[in-house]
Amino acid sequence: MTPSALLADFYQLTMLDAYLREGMHGPAVFELFVRRLPPQRNFLVAAGLEQALDFLEQLSFGDAEIGWLERQGGFSQQLLDYLRHWRFKGEVHAMPEGTLFFADEPVLRITAPLPQAQFVESRLLNIVHFQTLIASKAARAVLAAPGRLLVDFGMRRAHGAEAALFAARASYLAGFAGTATAQAAMHFGLPVFGTMAHSFVQAHASESAAFEAFARSRPKRPVLLVDTYDTEAAVAALPALAGRLAADGICLGGVRLDSGDLAAHARAVRRLLDDAGLRQLTVFASGNLDEYRIAQLLADAAPIDGFGVGTALDTSADVPALDAVFKLQSYAGQARRKRSEGKATWPGAKQVARRLGGDGCLMHDSVQLEDEALPPGSAPLLQAVMRGGRRLAPSPALDAVRAHHAAQMGTLPRRLRGLAPAEQPFTAEISARLQALARELDAAPH
Amino acid sequence: MTPSALLADFYQLTMLDAYLREGMHGPAVFELFVRRLPPQRNFLVAAGLEQALDFLEQLSFGDAEIGWLERQGGFSQQLLDYLRHWRFKGEVHAMPEGTLFFADEPVLRITAPLPQAQFVESRLLNIVHFQTLIASKAARAVLAAPGRLLVDFGMRRAHGAEAALFAARASYLAGFAGTATAQAAMHFGLPVFGTMAHSFVQAHASESAAFEAFARSRPKRPVLLVDTYDTEAAVAALPALAGRLAADGICLGGVRLDSGDLAAHARAVRRLLDDAGLRQLTVFASGNLDEYRIAQLLADAAPIDGFGVGTALDTSADVPALDAVFKLQSYAGQARRKRSEGKATWPGAKQVARRLGGDGCLMHDSVQLEDEALPPGSAPLLQAVMRGGRRLAPSPALDAVRAHHAAQMGTLPRRLRGLAPAEQPFTAEISARLQALARELDAAPH
Repeated sequence: MTPSALLADFYQLTMLDAYLREGMHGPAVFELFVRRLPPQRNFLVAAGLEQALDFLEQLSFGDAEIGWLERQGGFSQQLLDYLRHWRFKGEVHAMPEGTLFFADEPVLRITAPLPQAQFVESRLLNIVHFQTLIASKAARAVLAAPGRLLVDFGMRRAHGAEAALFAARASYLAGFAGTATAQAAMHFGLPVFGTMAHSFVQAHASESAAFEAFARSRPKRPVLLVDTYDTEAAVAALPALAGRLAADGICLGGVRLDSGDLAAHARAVRRLLDDAGLRQLTVFASGNLDEYRIAQLLADAAPIDGFGVGTALDTSADVPALDAVFKLQSYAGQARRKRSEGKATWPGAKQVARRLGGDGCLMHDSVQLEDEALPPGSAPLLQAVMRGGRRLAPSPALDAVRAHHAAQMGTLPRRLRGLAPAEQPFTAEISARLQALARELDAAPH
Repeated sequence: MTPSALLADFYQLTMLDAYLREGMHGPAVFELFVRRLPPQRNFLVAAGLEQALDFLEQLSFGDAEIGWLERQGGFSQQLLDYLRHWRFKGEVHAMPEGTLFFADEPVLRITAPLPQAQFVESRLLNIVHFQTLIASKAARAVLAAPGRLLVDFGMRRAHGAEAALFAARASYLAGFAGTATAQAAMHFGLPVFGTMAHSFVQAHASESAAFEAFARSRPKRPVLLVDTYDTEAAVAALPALAGRLAADGICLGGVRLDSGDLAAHARAVRRLLDDAGLRQLTVFASGNLDEYRIAQLLADAAPIDGFGVGTALDTSADVPALDAVFKLQSYAGQARRKRSEGKATWPGAKQVARRLGGDGCLMHDSVQLEDEALPPGSAPLLQAVMRGGRRLAPSPALDAVRAHHAAQMGTLPRRLRGLAPAEQPFTAEISARLQALARELDAAPH
């Protein structure tokens, strides 16, 4: 089923109805940010803006949705008419996709009449939170595997269709080489990878028959899955196969390992291949991998050229959700502050000013009111991307986003590049004016 | 973007091409099962069959998909023609949705020509794994909160659109009262819940103005969110509001707590409400809840009538993926066995025979070959649901599935009903004939 305008929390509609009855159409500012970084993340990577803007541009209510709301009862005719003519007319400021960010830094800001800015909350978060989650996870695998090929293998255990597709996009953006998911490759123009499963080997009368049939069907540097029965025995038989194939001009591309002690198998397989003069064959590994296991394998000097990362990537298994929220920061020109215990927000429309050090690395982020002067040497991270509900410019190509992200990773200080929690985490400074505004609002009656 | 036929791992297509070139159209049996239960799960709940059958019935390749494959190069014309005329013609046996199951027990079995049975792997797993994951998580919250109202609040941090929709369905199936996600309620016919967010309170000049406006807009037992500024102060002001509303025939429904020490707030709020004669108001809690926190709150005798469970439910946060796989068990009438280290499978087309004890509780599961006689007093769990690619009967209504699941939960032995890992987990017996077949295959050459 396709996401509809009703892919939203029901309370958005009950609130919207009340706003309309009260005539509360004043401009509201909502910001999307992460309240705190989980200990397993030293930085986050903004992603999903492209699909968020698509959502805002395309959101509309059809007869089916209006009819369902009518049947729920309790909604005003005014609300139903309002939804029938819905077109998002707001303004969006956002960090470019691929940008590194930290706790309390807005990555996206909506300025729109209150009913509009309110209504889009649930799906905006749903889109931006997930891609940010996956891009942030993927960037860690890229750090763990410098110079290695990384491929998204996660579709089957991703949380549904959209998760699989978005995970392929978000991981590519963060430096993966491509994906095994065909539709993601088609839709986003990603390099696609994939050879054979164990079932292919099993279906054949023998492993060597399976390998030969596959290589003749896919003669362009085929990669063979060698662990269905006995990894080393399978590889020991490859020189003979390589010889038969060479006679027909077919060169094997490599082997894939998917079980057991990957480091030990990789060493044994590499030796067997090298001894047989098959130095050009690569060794690719998969099977419950994540950035931690990849780092361990490479620390153990396992001769592995590439990794398929599946479930742990597409579900961000160690951190399956971020504390991402979308909060009202100002209404009708007045800053607002939620003060719930442990969930207080910084009020007002804000900007993030970033300063790099002489070494080109992140030095200082300031979260400040939008109209504050930028500290010397700082650049603003949030840029206007939509006005009147229309994009200000065509979205950058995904490869441009990927290049921007790679440049951003070049600014990540050494202390934040490890997989373990940084001893000295990076936190943005909250500007003095912003702190004063918060104190002022706290002192006001409610 | 809508899921297409290409929502599949690319290797399904490369393998399919090889199968066609080799004329390997023999009947294959693939089974979907979970290799091992994570320590945090004492049982699993089968879910997603309905969408899996929809997928099988509806799968087809359009010009866009065929064109993309053509442009990839390396695929035979035979493959492209085959896909152009694809219609799934296989047979499906499955456990009814809502059934409890355990490690190594097939929940779904496909019997179809090898290319067909192979190709559907990725999306079948993607559908069944996720709903099973969420139903299994939700059932734990139901166990933790007997007699309490449980509502799915997870859409915003679910992993994309489909995850949000499927999570609402799977949690309802497992005993939740409904969801906050409007589209899920509309599509699956679920009860929908939701009142207001903090932003609604913040947007108003005062909290009491927000409450009154909301109650007048939604007069049917409105629930008020009371923790935006100061929970007890908000509740202390309710009697006056209740009086004003009563004059117009409006009765408040309850309050929602979303932050801080929920048990302490619930007790204080309950006392304030009772002392003010507002006994009929309910207390609903939300905010980073899961089955563990709910159990703790109820163990602390927190007077809470209902719970909104969000991120932890929709992402199954403590176990974001199961070790679910779809494996070839037989081809062309011959049983097959994958023997990869730590990933060996039980060969052949199988059935699960379940026997209940005199107390009506699960006593014994036997995983056995399909043609083995059922042990006395046992019933088979896998039923034929599709033949020739068509459902054998209309799918049961979701409420019937929910009732079946509730009955299944009645068979869960006490030792498996806790949230902690059972000291004596439930494991299926592997029949003697099945074990003998596995040994026989291991001894054969490959």
